[in-house]
Amino acid sequence: MDKLKEFKELIEKMNSFNKAVSLFHWDMATEAPKKSVADKADVIGMLDTEAFNILTSDKMKECLETLEKTIEDLNEVDAKLVEFYRKEYDKNAKIPEDEYKEFSILAAKSTAVWEEAKGKSNFDLYKPYLEKIVEYKKKFVNYRGYEKHPYNTLLDDFEPGMTVEKLDKFFDTLKKDIVPLLNNINQSNKIINDKFVRFIYPKEGQKEFSDYLLGKIGYDKERGIIKESEHPFTLELSTNDVRITTHYYENYLLSAVYSTIHEGGHAIYEQNIDENLIGTTLDTGTSMGIHESQSRFYENVIGRSLGFWKVNFHKLQKIFKEQLQDVTVEQMYEAANIVKPSLIRIEADELTYALHIMVRYEIEKQLINGDIEVKDLPTIWNKLMSNYLGVIPTNDAEGVLQDIHWSDGSFGYFPSYALGNAYAAQFLATMNKEFDVDKCMENDELDTIKNWLNDKIHKYGRLLEPNEIIKNVTGEELNAKYLVEYLKQKYENIYNLN
Amino acid sequence: MDKLKEFKELIEKMNSFNKAVSLFHWDMATEAPKKSVADKADVIGMLDTEAFNILTSDKMKECLETLEKTIEDLNEVDAKLVEFYRKEYDKNAKIPEDEYKEFSILAAKSTAVWEEAKGKSNFDLYKPYLEKIVEYKKKFVNYRGYEKHPYNTLLDDFEPGMTVEKLDKFFDTLKKDIVPLLNNINQSNKIINDKFVRFIYPKEGQKEFSDYLLGKIGYDKERGIIKESEHPFTLELSTNDVRITTHYYENYLLSAVYSTIHEGGHAIYEQNIDENLIGTTLDTGTSMGIHESQSRFYENVIGRSLGFWKVNFHKLQKIFKEQLQDVTVEQMYEAANIVKPSLIRIEADELTYALHIMVRYEIEKQLINGDIEVKDLPTIWNKLMSNYLGVIPTNDAEGVLQDIHWSDGSFGYFPSYALGNAYAAQFLATMNKEFDVDKCMENDELDTIKNWLNDKIHKYGRLLEPNEIIKNVTGEELNAKYLVEYLKQKYENIYNLN
Repeated sequence: MDKLKEFKELIEKMNSFNKAVSLFHWDMATEAPKKSVADKADVIGMLDTEAFNILTSDKMKECLETLEKTIEDLNEVDAKLVEFYRKEYDKNAKIPEDEYKEFSILAAKSTAVWEEAKGKSNFDLYKPYLEKIVEYKKKFVNYRGYEKHPYNTLLDDFEPGMTVEKLDKFFDTLKKDIVPLLNNINQSNKIINDKFVRFIYPKEGQKEFSDYLLGKIGYDKERGIIKESEHPFTLELSTNDVRITTHYYENYLLSAVYSTIHEGGHAIYEQNIDENLIGTTLDTGTSMGIHESQSRFYENVIGRSLGFWKVNFHKLQKIFKEQLQDVTVEQMYEAANIVKPSLIRIEADELTYALHIMVRYEIEKQLINGDIEVKDLPTIWNKLMSNYLGVIPTNDAEGVLQDIHWSDGSFGYFPSYALGNAYAAQFLATMNKEFDVDKCMENDELDTIKNWLNDKIHKYGRLLEPNEIIKNVTGEELNAKYLVEYLKQKYENIYNLN
Repeated sequence: MDKLKEFKELIEKMNSFNKAVSLFHWDMATEAPKKSVADKADVIGMLDTEAFNILTSDKMKECLETLEKTIEDLNEVDAKLVEFYRKEYDKNAKIPEDEYKEFSILAAKSTAVWEEAKGKSNFDLYKPYLEKIVEYKKKFVNYRGYEKHPYNTLLDDFEPGMTVEKLDKFFDTLKKDIVPLLNNINQSNKIINDKFVRFIYPKEGQKEFSDYLLGKIGYDKERGIIKESEHPFTLELSTNDVRITTHYYENYLLSAVYSTIHEGGHAIYEQNIDENLIGTTLDTGTSMGIHESQSRFYENVIGRSLGFWKVNFHKLQKIFKEQLQDVTVEQMYEAANIVKPSLIRIEADELTYALHIMVRYEIEKQLINGDIEVKDLPTIWNKLMSNYLGVIPTNDAEGVLQDIHWSDGSFGYFPSYALGNAYAAQFLATMNKEFDVDKCMENDELDTIKNWLNDKIHKYGRLLEPNEIIKNVTGEELNAKYLVEYLKQKYENIYNLN
């Protein structure tokens, strides 16, 4: 079993480099001086490439081949590790080291350029970088190979087993039901007043409420950090160090509330992975889709429920006496669930959110396929927004430049957001068979929910694949009908459509 | 010149690992959750060992041997790089990799244990770790070899060219003059009132003043971060990212004032290294002694001068109206220069500071030599404190446990503090030949001083050795007499001893 030891040493080394890269990202997003971005891009590129070199090394290949021959002698965790790294090896071994390194440095720099371009709403600034990023991604897909559609290779990076075929069907189902529901809402007589969430809410008070919320939902503050960044995110350095950021807008109360709960949901997943997996690489969420199912469960199912506001509104009202003195719990609940086709994905309501994802999905699919080109993206973006949501950006900052994801080549990532919503609704349906989730929320018993998620999902880390998780927990494959039912029930109720 | 390219690639890789280690240290000192310390120690150990492996690799050896043969064909920077890494290679190549890695992980963990032991004032907790650290250091010195005294090898790590022989002489000179001066001060009639610096000074106001001071002395805030940590320090990630921390004590005004100026002095050195050296490894201060000469020049020569307070006291008084309304500039100046033998090095006045260093120097020398043992340190510490300063700690937290340095094996570091004071005084003497330094401070023309230091010292980075710097700038070797003269003049004046 010397090979097992060697294998684990390689993993430990890779992990160290990857964690260093993560820490640099954390640092750059939260506090590093802007003038040092270029220096850091080089360091990140180097560390990332070193991890890549180990992954694709002859040593790794030998370890995998040897261990695969006697895989039945390995314990469950070690066997899964071999399986995991076999897949990672096959994915990456065909990419030449120098191209990987160039890409890695480019990605770090391109993110900084994207930020500038977004600030100036200047797509031309970003275009040459994005073109190169897309070029590399297409080249890498060709090296790696693909089945049926080149985009499938990238989808699999974020959601193992996901394909264009499955997603087309998934989005069709959603579209079929969401679009009529949205029309009904648009034509309903119900007027929701959400002006009060746009009053001025000083940051200090928002901070206090975010902190309170994280405690409520069960984020362990002794094993993490809460900080601010331009774009909220969660970062895991180890199970004992799961960090989240939020962003406070003084003229929009709900932004930080929901980004805090959202990131808190991600963090609760990471903080509750089984002890036995710590330090193995399997000690993290199994896919972006399952991860999003957790963050969205917290953000939407819990955070946008009436029960949640019944319990927590008094706290918010206490902090912002003046702004909220005349607001009722029900008004708060409705304001948090107002449906309004809009331009910005991260501010979208629960119902139209999937439509934003469809815009990106259509673009990515065709971009990687070579059917469309980077230079045409602003036009295509605006057309799709008009088709799906009926709104058209007046500039690229609120259009094609709004998201960070493409800047570092994360094509294939966006669909996980929609999958997350669907998984979350499917988990909710199962959960409701075991106990009354609404009642739990009204009774402020979020621990019951958290324990269920810990036990059925979180603890497994990467030990189970996303399709195994969903099958084990709910008894069936991913099924979009649960999301549709959930949305119908919720919004028909709010908008008096029955 | 393929070997030169290969050589630089090795350096770039090592630098990336070292920068990652630095970032982890920054993170752990300023914000990382305590519960994640053990996880991080492993990662740091791995990254540090990877850098070590590259440094001591056959590839590095070959590069050095090849490049040394044609060293006259290299430009100044490249030739210096070869020289620098030859020394580093010879230092480290004899240490076995596994022992280096064990030591590196131990050092990261031991620092956390030291912190706990200090908090509990419990030397026994720390003892087993420190014993192992000392054991490794002694073993490493034996691998590396030494001339005359084993401690010389460690001194050279922090101050190239420094030896026990030179230091014994240096400290003897200081002792010969400082001890009588101290006695005169103790017997003088002058009473300095410094009670007001121990009033309550809320943190926010202290922060404002620290920030103001950093601007005054010329720290470039756009190329760094100012943060808080238990123990103030400076950390350089690149010339464009030089970070400092301070620590605010609400019941002691001067602590943060002087730690801010001190770290600011370090940072100004790092921020002003010549552009041509950026990214080469030569883009940092040349030795700990020269570094300390810059931080102490700012802290003591500038920050504890009457001219400095004449310019800046009004700002402090404005922030803390109530506490300082009856205090004059002269009283502030005297309070900042009160001489009082005390237990804690970092709170020591400029005069008795060297005596604190002597205590540590005596211990380190004998510890590495094997003349004394770790278990006896508390007793020895207290005895030396009594001999040199006439004060005895009542517990180990204010005694042998007060400093972080031994916890990660930084034996040989302490003397740089005393050398820094001496270098600073020697630089000052030269500077005064060119312009009136006191007048500069009174006229708020700190840029003149900064430009001089930039031009004579900072810009060279590691291109020049410490003895070359001191010789080039002052025309002679290190000479303790300048420090003695400076201290005599200053304190005889303050304490009316003439």
